[in-house]
Amino acid sequence: MVDENQTPDETAATVSGAEQRVAPQTDVHLSKSFVQDLENALKEDDPSSVWALLEEVHAADVADILEVLPSVKRKKLIGLLGEKLDPEVLSEIEGEAQDDLYEHMPNDQIADAVTDMETDDAVYVIEELDDDDRKEVMQKLTADDRVAIEESLAYPEDSAGRLMQRQLFAVPEFWTIGQTIDYLRSDSEDIPEDFYDVFVVDPAHRPVGTVPLSRIMRSNRPTTIGDIMDKDPYLIEVTADQEEVAYQFTKYHLISASVVDESQRLVGVITVDDVVDVIDEEAEEDILALAGVSDESGVNESFTEIIKGRFLWLFINLCAAVLGSFVIGQFEATIEQLVALAVLMPVVASMGGNAGTQTMTVAVRALATKELSGTNAFRVVTRELMAASLNGMMLASIAGLVAWFWFSNILLGAIFASAMIFNILVAGLFGILVPLGLQKADIDPAIASSVFVTTITDVVGFFVFLSLAAVFLL
Amino acid sequence: MVDENQTPDETAATVSGAEQRVAPQTDVHLSKSFVQDLENALKEDDPSSVWALLEEVHAADVADILEVLPSVKRKKLIGLLGEKLDPEVLSEIEGEAQDDLYEHMPNDQIADAVTDMETDDAVYVIEELDDDDRKEVMQKLTADDRVAIEESLAYPEDSAGRLMQRQLFAVPEFWTIGQTIDYLRSDSEDIPEDFYDVFVVDPAHRPVGTVPLSRIMRSNRPTTIGDIMDKDPYLIEVTADQEEVAYQFTKYHLISASVVDESQRLVGVITVDDVVDVIDEEAEEDILALAGVSDESGVNESFTEIIKGRFLWLFINLCAAVLGSFVIGQFEATIEQLVALAVLMPVVASMGGNAGTQTMTVAVRALATKELSGTNAFRVVTRELMAASLNGMMLASIAGLVAWFWFSNILLGAIFASAMIFNILVAGLFGILVPLGLQKADIDPAIASSVFVTTITDVVGFFVFLSLAAVFLL
Repeated sequence: MVDENQTPDETAATVSGAEQRVAPQTDVHLSKSFVQDLENALKEDDPSSVWALLEEVHAADVADILEVLPSVKRKKLIGLLGEKLDPEVLSEIEGEAQDDLYEHMPNDQIADAVTDMETDDAVYVIEELDDDDRKEVMQKLTADDRVAIEESLAYPEDSAGRLMQRQLFAVPEFWTIGQTIDYLRSDSEDIPEDFYDVFVVDPAHRPVGTVPLSRIMRSNRPTTIGDIMDKDPYLIEVTADQEEVAYQFTKYHLISASVVDESQRLVGVITVDDVVDVIDEEAEEDILALAGVSDESGVNESFTEIIKGRFLWLFINLCAAVLGSFVIGQFEATIEQLVALAVLMPVVASMGGNAGTQTMTVAVRALATKELSGTNAFRVVTRELMAASLNGMMLASIAGLVAWFWFSNILLGAIFASAMIFNILVAGLFGILVPLGLQKADIDPAIASSVFVTTITDVVGFFVFLSLAAVFLL
Repeated sequence: MVDENQTPDETAATVSGAEQRVAPQTDVHLSKSFVQDLENALKEDDPSSVWALLEEVHAADVADILEVLPSVKRKKLIGLLGEKLDPEVLSEIEGEAQDDLYEHMPNDQIADAVTDMETDDAVYVIEELDDDDRKEVMQKLTADDRVAIEESLAYPEDSAGRLMQRQLFAVPEFWTIGQTIDYLRSDSEDIPEDFYDVFVVDPAHRPVGTVPLSRIMRSNRPTTIGDIMDKDPYLIEVTADQEEVAYQFTKYHLISASVVDESQRLVGVITVDDVVDVIDEEAEEDILALAGVSDESGVNESFTEIIKGRFLWLFINLCAAVLGSFVIGQFEATIEQLVALAVLMPVVASMGGNAGTQTMTVAVRALATKELSGTNAFRVVTRELMAASLNGMMLASIAGLVAWFWFSNILLGAIFASAMIFNILVAGLFGILVPLGLQKADIDPAIASSVFVTTITDVVGFFVFLSLAAVFLL
């Protein structure tokens, strides 16, 4: 039957269409040649050839292209596309390109785009508009949309309430499969477009279970929902932090979870696809924070954001480095007598800093994934210290030998090695105590740990090495 | 009707049951008091009181508890639980606890557990067994299970083929909704237990579309699948790397994607929940790699793994630091004349190192998320250099003033500031060129960038500062 209805040409078209959509290893639309073609079309000021290139491109790719283009060409492209620009691009775009796009687009068009979006995307766009534009766009929305966005904005930023979808299909436990299917076929307005689970609620609208759609399809009409539902749905409080939500989804391999308000009433649902972005975001935040970069200073951000996002950390590091210098300053007389100390001392500090960064990074990740807690802190600290002593001894032996032969001074080699072992031990200890302490003080360990740990290893490294030398060598 | 069937007690039970399952902000089962209770029960050697504590605990939490316990108590717990241990724990557990569990559990029990698992979990367990145990367990499996695991193992590690589920429900385009529903109700063996999408294939079993279950439920029996399907299913090659798969899912907000072999035939499906673990894993790998830690040296790993996972990096860093020392060694005479140089030089190196780490981390992340590519490399490099000059000038001015007043030497202050500006510029340049170059050479930039960048900033920092001083100060 398929063969009769399809001409050979159609078959070929389907196949080649399918082939084109195989996930490419590098993004075609970000390739140099595609961007070159686009830039040429822009130069010719020809909306139709620009459109021919972008017509079939996914909104996420259009957003990427806008981010990659230099500002002038970007603005020109936005102008040439005009109303043809896929509204979804608004919720995909980031950084400087986002500012350009929102500024350049008429508020009417933004309002139309927001109307077509799901609430979480709409909120993303609305939040990023400046105050005047936001007011104007909100006024252009229907009352329903406006209320939905305002309700969502009422939940704390990064909370489950912001993440959840409000549209869901809930039925009482005593409904039969037949009733449920008939209701679904009735095309009632309160049924979401695509959904995967049916939620079961009690008369007070508290969730009591869930049923995957596939199970409903495979059951007979007289069966009741209560008979086939999974009891004890996984509940998330509407105020829970998104990081906690992501943790629960990852740990328990959840597909969807019911979101409840303080009276335990079902107010929304979070599905695993909403969580993917959160996991990505939170990991990104941790990576950047550990390197002392604010998460708004990536390659696509504006120049001012980059400067702002990095200056503070560098300034704090300057203060820490000066503190290290101050320690060295106390030993000027010692160094004057033996310049070899100045040659070797950065190695002691650097080894401590690196060993500390290792332990600290492991500890910060373990705290984020709850592998490290009060319960096992003592054991983990002990083990890190043992690892630090062993690695420290091996490395210090090598380093000590190098120093001995370089400066033909066995005592200098021994002091160098001892200081290094001591500093690596200190690094292991503080590499884990600093993140633990910060976590206890409710400060994000990813943001603040680095500077503490490296300052400690610098100061201790210089002090121990130079004072040992002052006492035993001179 | 609900009210009639439920006694008040039952209602209360449901509510309190529901309240208990609200996602806790900290994990109850990892709390000190719970672990204490468990350790007390272990001391009394009483299987029934241990079981009473763990009976209702999720397998993922049991795995966490085993990871948190010290080795002796862990082995005792495994022994006391015996066959009552939830087989799912086998696929949830990691690190040292995993070794202990697999060693201690009889192969019969492992084989039974593997039989009940989905293929990807089964492969995870099988891979981690040592050779003898693996052979024995494989022999105890049914031929079907063995073939499924062997086929999965035939795909490269970390490929889409390892990630996908093979069980899926595929129908031809010309089937009606009625036919489809009847087939689903027939309880045929080749229908997966829970699923969300129906896949539409052509006669050669090539995917041509997908239909969400909810759409099938809302359509009328005579409608054909072809009428309501989404065309052009998103295709992933079975050999694609899991990192690429995760990237595609995140970028295009996919819920599921069809996996095809080299003849474009549908061989499996990847759903977004499979991807969550991958995103988590890949981010973890990047974070640890940037700090020079192998991803097998976390807090739950064995002592030897920790040592191995960190020694190499520290050794490479030692070599790099000695290289820096060697540069300083060339200026011994200069330092002897002005010890203030020894006091200040670590600050120049440290500021370069930190600025380089910032830029490098941003670049590594931008490469991973494909925000940085050949297309915008030139623009990004230019901008990073501009940011580095501006931040460098501001910070160097502060630092220069401090040095001037500290040592009452304006020329020293000026040289200190100039060297710092130069080193921060070098840091900005190499912070982005090193990751770009490594990526081009097909080396993971997350793993190798750090050591190159900090070695460069150390060597350049010491050399520029000390040689400027040698030329202009002495």
